[in-house]
Amino acid sequence: MEPQPTGVAPPIQLRIADDLRMKIERGDLAAGDPLPTLQEICDEYDCSINSARAAIGLLKQQGLITGGRGKAARVRTPAQRVCRSSERHQEEKDLVLKPQSVRASTGVAETDMGSKIKDLSFSTRYEQIEPSPRLAADLGIAEDINVLRRTYEMRDRKDGRRLSWSVSYIPLPLIESNARLLDSANEPWPGGTQHQLHTVGIEVMRIVDQVSASMPTTAAAHEWRLDDGVPMLHVRRISYDADNRIVELSDADFPADRTELSFTTPLQKW
Amino acid sequence: MEPQPTGVAPPIQLRIADDLRMKIERGDLAAGDPLPTLQEICDEYDCSINSARAAIGLLKQQGLITGGRGKAARVRTPAQRVCRSSERHQEEKDLVLKPQSVRASTGVAETDMGSKIKDLSFSTRYEQIEPSPRLAADLGIAEDINVLRRTYEMRDRKDGRRLSWSVSYIPLPLIESNARLLDSANEPWPGGTQHQLHTVGIEVMRIVDQVSASMPTTAAAHEWRLDDGVPMLHVRRISYDADNRIVELSDADFPADRTELSFTTPLQKW
Repeated sequence: MEPQPTGVAPPIQLRIADDLRMKIERGDLAAGDPLPTLQEICDEYDCSINSARAAIGLLKQQGLITGGRGKAARVRTPAQRVCRSSERHQEEKDLVLKPQSVRASTGVAETDMGSKIKDLSFSTRYEQIEPSPRLAADLGIAEDINVLRRTYEMRDRKDGRRLSWSVSYIPLPLIESNARLLDSANEPWPGGTQHQLHTVGIEVMRIVDQVSASMPTTAAAHEWRLDDGVPMLHVRRISYDADNRIVELSDADFPADRTELSFTTPLQKW
Repeated sequence: MEPQPTGVAPPIQLRIADDLRMKIERGDLAAGDPLPTLQEICDEYDCSINSARAAIGLLKQQGLITGGRGKAARVRTPAQRVCRSSERHQEEKDLVLKPQSVRASTGVAETDMGSKIKDLSFSTRYEQIEPSPRLAADLGIAEDINVLRRTYEMRDRKDGRRLSWSVSYIPLPLIESNARLLDSANEPWPGGTQHQLHTVGIEVMRIVDQVSASMPTTAAAHEWRLDDGVPMLHVRRISYDADNRIVELSDADFPADRTELSFTTPLQKW
């Protein structure tokens, strides 16, 4: 939208779009309902067919409707939101000291998705890389220190749709004393990354989650089967040990229409 | 984007858009640089002028370029990101027990914005409302309990642009014993909400931040002067006292192009 001086009435298509959005948010138009036709919009708002079409286009960009391009526009059915809570960080830490049988039976990734394991396909790729100057700086290491990059992806086996994606970076010197940590054949590792780090004497003491959002690339929108107007949430997670050293950095993406991130901050008693 | 069966090549405009996005992300095209003209795109990718135009439109929806609609398309200069950290929750709690002079001189809101106070205009609105059934449920109160709704807004005095916006809800019975808490004339309150609650004997023990993202309404895009393709981050903050009672609920919006949210989770030592 072009910036406008304050006090000037917004163009008609903006007013139509916000009016329709309000009807959707109030529930006057429910999920799955057809929108008024272009002709009905023209009649109601006394506007041109181009303005009506532009209003529908805006609602599509805002992620509120589906259809268009020849298909009837309908109110988008909101996806079920998966809540991802920071309370899991401590739960995962508590799990590390449990016996292998408990660690192996406590997989949270699958249950998050609301799908059965047999319907999911997992893939994990391990690579040892030279970090870019940027990545080395983010990890707080020299550029000649190699890094283990691990890429995790989960897809719906039926339709190929991506369900989760993340990439993790660990400075190689921290973990190379345990060769099993360098081989993706050992995934899924019972107890996850915190247990992997535990095998080389590292205890994670603090985790920082940095959250941002942006619109997806067209390639990402395709992988995730995103409707128009759905942003991606990005979480960069930084794990520190007791010496305040960065022991893992990971980047994960989440489609904003089906994700809520929850972070709990306990406060010290007065 | 329409869903496509896996394995089918994406339409040419998607490939052009992702190719240009990669050039922008790699830095081959820097902030402020003009994009190739439609004709140059047609020549390079051997495509129609409509496909070239569609590719530019996609980049605009993705928030990567400015211009279009007659103006030359250029790589968008990223806004400076303000980091909002959950570590402030404890800092604000620590502040509550400090003398008034310290509380009054410790305003963090202004410095966040990188602007001088004289360039900012603040507004605060207090209203006593009957909660909607949804709000009552979210606050964990009966629907006949009234609620103090406080709306905070900060604008750039020069151009009227919105710089921050939030709305806070507190069940009235928690605070009505201190009449000063019901009058917006007492804003800005030295020490903020945690100190206000302290005056009626409430200690905040835990804060939960729930983060989501969506595309803005056209009205919101105008208020915040957002470029196309910039999502909003939404933070619902829930404050609990020692009895696990919700003592405040607040909703705040942040433009995603200029915001990073940071959440720190300390872990218990083994």
